[in-house]
Amino acid sequence: MSLIVQKFGGSSVADAESIKRVAKRIVETRRAGNEVVVAVSAMGDTTDELLDLAHEVTPIPAPRELDMLLTAGERISMALLAMAIRSLGYDARSFTGSQAGMITDAQHGAARIVDVTPGRLREALDQGAIAIVAGFQGFSRESRDITTLGRGGSDTTAVALAAALGADVCEIYTDVDGVFTADPRVVPKARKLDRITSEEMLELAASGAKVLHIRAVEYARRHGVTLHVRSSFSYTEGTIVYDPQASPEGETFMEESVIAGVAADLSEAKITVVGVPDIPGAAAKIFKIVANTNANVDMIVQNVSAATTGRTDISFTLPKADGEKAITALRNAQEGVGFENLQYDDQIGKLAIVGNAMRSASGISAKLFESLYDAGINIEMISTSEIRISVVTRAASINDAVRAVHTAFGLDGEGDAVVHAGTGR
Amino acid sequence: MSLIVQKFGGSSVADAESIKRVAKRIVETRRAGNEVVVAVSAMGDTTDELLDLAHEVTPIPAPRELDMLLTAGERISMALLAMAIRSLGYDARSFTGSQAGMITDAQHGAARIVDVTPGRLREALDQGAIAIVAGFQGFSRESRDITTLGRGGSDTTAVALAAALGADVCEIYTDVDGVFTADPRVVPKARKLDRITSEEMLELAASGAKVLHIRAVEYARRHGVTLHVRSSFSYTEGTIVYDPQASPEGETFMEESVIAGVAADLSEAKITVVGVPDIPGAAAKIFKIVANTNANVDMIVQNVSAATTGRTDISFTLPKADGEKAITALRNAQEGVGFENLQYDDQIGKLAIVGNAMRSASGISAKLFESLYDAGINIEMISTSEIRISVVTRAASINDAVRAVHTAFGLDGEGDAVVHAGTGR
Repeated sequence: MSLIVQKFGGSSVADAESIKRVAKRIVETRRAGNEVVVAVSAMGDTTDELLDLAHEVTPIPAPRELDMLLTAGERISMALLAMAIRSLGYDARSFTGSQAGMITDAQHGAARIVDVTPGRLREALDQGAIAIVAGFQGFSRESRDITTLGRGGSDTTAVALAAALGADVCEIYTDVDGVFTADPRVVPKARKLDRITSEEMLELAASGAKVLHIRAVEYARRHGVTLHVRSSFSYTEGTIVYDPQASPEGETFMEESVIAGVAADLSEAKITVVGVPDIPGAAAKIFKIVANTNANVDMIVQNVSAATTGRTDISFTLPKADGEKAITALRNAQEGVGFENLQYDDQIGKLAIVGNAMRSASGISAKLFESLYDAGINIEMISTSEIRISVVTRAASINDAVRAVHTAFGLDGEGDAVVHAGTGR
Repeated sequence: MSLIVQKFGGSSVADAESIKRVAKRIVETRRAGNEVVVAVSAMGDTTDELLDLAHEVTPIPAPRELDMLLTAGERISMALLAMAIRSLGYDARSFTGSQAGMITDAQHGAARIVDVTPGRLREALDQGAIAIVAGFQGFSRESRDITTLGRGGSDTTAVALAAALGADVCEIYTDVDGVFTADPRVVPKARKLDRITSEEMLELAASGAKVLHIRAVEYARRHGVTLHVRSSFSYTEGTIVYDPQASPEGETFMEESVIAGVAADLSEAKITVVGVPDIPGAAAKIFKIVANTNANVDMIVQNVSAATTGRTDISFTLPKADGEKAITALRNAQEGVGFENLQYDDQIGKLAIVGNAMRSASGISAKLFESLYDAGINIEMISTSEIRISVVTRAASINDAVRAVHTAFGLDGEGDAVVHAGTGR
């Protein structure tokens, strides 16, 4: 008998009909002889609707109360799902984050899991019941208050439960068939990956792939949880996200392609600090100022200093949402740092290729740059990690760039990928 | 410094604007130097919407899951209310039934309060905060599950908190100005009562008056909690519901009128068992059969036996909702009981007059019957308690009956009563 944790996102439980469909699916897994624990998100747009309601009441809702409010969303979906399963003749019980033992710190809106004590879930399973758990939420022992894990928290809930219960697999149900070599809406010939390492998945998620939340992938990797990303709209096998070190099969499931996928991200902006004195500590000063605004700096490029002026330019990217506060902080510190001026550019796109085999293969970056050159696309910034290469281009040419690179690395599949409606959380 | 418990029903917190208005009202009470605990219902029609959703998923929702579902409603309203108060610069914290220490038995959908341990509320008050509590919900220690108290449970929550915290008064905010001598929609000249004893209030509520839930009044009487029923739409003083034994002023606040009010109830039906053998035990048999269906029998009338036949008729009233099962059970037992046939009449109306002074005053029933006779209204059944007389008439003439009796007992006020929109829960 296997223990399977299943996570269903908001689009999979958007209305009563969807909930009944998901209930049938869960019951099939149970009927096949498995123990089943389900983590579920709020229905459809419930969370956004509750947020809107909060903002109608006050522009800056108190974080403790916002968490109390938002957790009503999963409470509704999990109770309906448990009812639907029971009406199919199977025992099911819903549990809040607190009842499921999701213990977090007291940081409202972005709580970190500090412990998972799933005693009541184990008890329910032992009694033959299916356990339905509210995703996204937890409980702080310290403050005795309800907390939320932040956006995408339901994935993390599922993975944390899978780790704590020693589940055989954590199935993440979504509205796409799995992890693709690129976004199928941009690249019709994108292929679904049968397998991907958790490290590759991490880099793809960090580079803009939306299918899994980076935090859930990190948690899965740290605790050796195997993920199965699949569609709740079809019975197709999805993508297994695994740790080659932990896997008994070792590296044998390596994809044939050198790179696993191409990701694109249009959510960042570029700030260039022009005319920075080329003296030790100038860059440190700048990034300390930016860090103090809590802006999340991604790529950094420093040009070679022009010998004639003794000055250099430093460019970095950060989420557009962090742009204004970083600009303001830098402007206020212009005299202290001694730079000449600031440029802000929110029309950039970031492309990344990710692949475990990059470690050993050579010529990958050359091939990347060449394919972009052939497509007439200019590269503005470059950054690399052990298994990833990222480049910044114009936002307007990012889709062309992704398609060109996808083809150049031999990722194009035979037919067109199937794209389902809706979005997950 | 007084401790005041305030209860706001669903119509008082129907949308963001109403919530902000209620928040201001609560803050005014706090600013006047009082400690404030608030029990709040779900917003507007939320509970009904959640019920509809449950019934879309399954015709018979599992009771445990239904409670889990419905408690999301108060979670939303209490969090929004706490946010709204905080945005006015006052500390406020919301608490679920479980966090507020509302301990109940495990009877889902109709849980009884077994203990109230409001430690966290006391703590919040001591720190100067306003405590907002989810009405209607509790927690079973036994099953460790969330429970609900049933319809009207928010009134009971407020009263139970007032009793446990030793509050000076429990204010029940509703959409009318208080308790009236009759329903102002039926009797435009109905007067608001300044005071009414809890016993009178109990009889009025049991006779169809909707303003307060009978269970909350019972709880208040048992624990010596003074209620103040008032409108959330105006600042008019409402109606004080008090226990004359517990009140230091004793009976001095007795209304001048002999009767406190006239109530009407169209929710009942009448069953007549025709031709019952007039032998000992026949009535007992009949009501045992009805009791076994859990039908809630109200009035009972047995005619004098006709000497020629040795048979009698027994009539009783019960909620229309219980009618079918009672009829079915009786029909199945016809042979055993030996009655001739059954009549079912759902076109009846019940009128009741209630007044503490009935104990000592005489001629009340004569005056009641006379006023109905003068209005041309036929009386079909009569039943009395120490402080109440109820009669059954045709449903079609119930409003005329209420107006006639209201005038006959000198209850008509000067002007017309103000009727506000909306309904409470």
